[in-house]
Amino acid sequence: MDLIFLGTSSGAPTRARNVTGLALQEETGKGWHLVDCGEATQHQVLRTPLSLHELRAIFVTHVHGDHCYGLPGLLASAGMQGRQEPLEIVAPDGIEEWVRTTLRLTRTWLAFELNFHAVESLDEWRGGNLRVAAVALSHRVPSYGYSFAEARPDPRLDIDRLDRHGIPRGPLWGQLARGIDVQHEGRTLHSDDYLIFGRPPRRVVVGGDNDRPELLAEACRSAQVLVHEATYTQAVANDARADFGHSTAAAVAAFAQAAGLANLVLTHFSARYQADPKRGPCIEDIRAEAAAAYRGRLFLAEDFARFRLGRDGELQRVECGR
Amino acid sequence: MDLIFLGTSSGAPTRARNVTGLALQEETGKGWHLVDCGEATQHQVLRTPLSLHELRAIFVTHVHGDHCYGLPGLLASAGMQGRQEPLEIVAPDGIEEWVRTTLRLTRTWLAFELNFHAVESLDEWRGGNLRVAAVALSHRVPSYGYSFAEARPDPRLDIDRLDRHGIPRGPLWGQLARGIDVQHEGRTLHSDDYLIFGRPPRRVVVGGDNDRPELLAEACRSAQVLVHEATYTQAVANDARADFGHSTAAAVAAFAQAAGLANLVLTHFSARYQADPKRGPCIEDIRAEAAAAYRGRLFLAEDFARFRLGRDGELQRVECGR
Repeated sequence: MDLIFLGTSSGAPTRARNVTGLALQEETGKGWHLVDCGEATQHQVLRTPLSLHELRAIFVTHVHGDHCYGLPGLLASAGMQGRQEPLEIVAPDGIEEWVRTTLRLTRTWLAFELNFHAVESLDEWRGGNLRVAAVALSHRVPSYGYSFAEARPDPRLDIDRLDRHGIPRGPLWGQLARGIDVQHEGRTLHSDDYLIFGRPPRRVVVGGDNDRPELLAEACRSAQVLVHEATYTQAVANDARADFGHSTAAAVAAFAQAAGLANLVLTHFSARYQADPKRGPCIEDIRAEAAAAYRGRLFLAEDFARFRLGRDGELQRVECGR
Repeated sequence: MDLIFLGTSSGAPTRARNVTGLALQEETGKGWHLVDCGEATQHQVLRTPLSLHELRAIFVTHVHGDHCYGLPGLLASAGMQGRQEPLEIVAPDGIEEWVRTTLRLTRTWLAFELNFHAVESLDEWRGGNLRVAAVALSHRVPSYGYSFAEARPDPRLDIDRLDRHGIPRGPLWGQLARGIDVQHEGRTLHSDDYLIFGRPPRRVVVGGDNDRPELLAEACRSAQVLVHEATYTQAVANDARADFGHSTAAAVAAFAQAAGLANLVLTHFSARYQADPKRGPCIEDIRAEAAAAYRGRLFLAEDFARFRLGRDGELQRVECGR
């Protein structure tokens, strides 16, 4: 499972960081999923090996523009590239109305269907080899985190059970092995009932904007990775108005340490944090603050950084490709 | 008067060219005007010396997304940067509704006012040292070109007239000299009535998407520069469906030649035209086709190309700055 950061700046783009967008790519390298789609996410995709044809679903954390203004352009470009596969979009209230209004007012016709799912009533979204659940967070507007778990980690058929249930060997077994539910003698056989998994699923939790990381405690219980905003350091947050709705590096790090998370990726940095410490507050201040409270593997996201979560639960930075 | 191209690709961005955006900067270097605002125009602005604080007005040619999807993000970023000056937006039907709906649904509050002007009923827009008029064009949706003319080219006070009309020397003269209408003894004195202009105004015409360049004939009569889309070469257009709504390099060049235009800048190129001729149709095919029909000064726009229109009416490429 790979994470490719397409934007890591909060609020507005900078010359080095775009606004929020995160690609989650399955191990096969084929399908991918997008969490948030700030303006120019499609431009960022052009600089990665990702293709809009292979995008399975988009998950939007909240309605603020730096997390969604790239949607209409990305959809239009997918259409111009000839996409015909329907696209799933899981999003909070307001996004479907906005996207459909935008396409109508700008006379944009897509050759593929958009299937919207309201995050407020989402039970579980399944696609590819993933199960996705949502968690309500705390921000100035309703905001959600998403938990991405492997649906079928190292699966093998439960042959004893298949035989016991009298399911004949052949194509049915093949479909069940690939995670497909099948019809047999008038009833539905659920793939999951006939698979044995070789290990626990890998799980990545991606937060939206959020000033209470502890709301992700339950979702993080069996996760190996948390991706969370750390918009400010505590020092800067103390100087600013109190109701800003974001998390500090210190708060996220303390939560991750308490939750026993093995890997933590911070992102969504205020533009005030520069790469060069001579120019003012530095991005390394964020790292230092988090490292003081968190003893796991700590990463600060950058645009086009690719991280790979191995089957051993360890996250590593790898080359982005292209 | 400078033109800075922020995007020169039609339809969708490429790695080398963004979708449409064109900055028109006054000679003072202060105020600027934006024609069209495709997605990531604000990102392009970050790579120029332009500031969102000094943006006077935005002119939208038509509602297609590659010409307007950058508006909400640019406005939101201007707000985050502390802009308080009202912003003028001249645009066709649909844009105001879309922008206001977008800001509402994404809970975005701007600290400055947006003053929309319907291009359909625009007589003349004046701001800074510019007069702007609109021309209806021909495209799949209503599309407009804009003519930008200097309002006060090399002005000096008409002292004879001021004396004749009994206007007392002093601050009133200064205001009239700077193009400001003033109140005097209960009536309005119009600056233009007391100025003598040293030369004809420089005029730049910027077309929107358009398959009939001749619709710009009147607007181009006293213009020195035409900026027009040349999405395809004639050869490619002949192979494509006939109703595509765009102009070929040959058609624009023939029009510019017939109109006696001194300078022609082509832009809005299909992504199929590559810089490298080995990779397929080449951007130089566009240049060759146009050069065969047009004998004036011909330019092909590139992102971040800056062109300066001198007082002598000659357009020259200069360094972009920053």
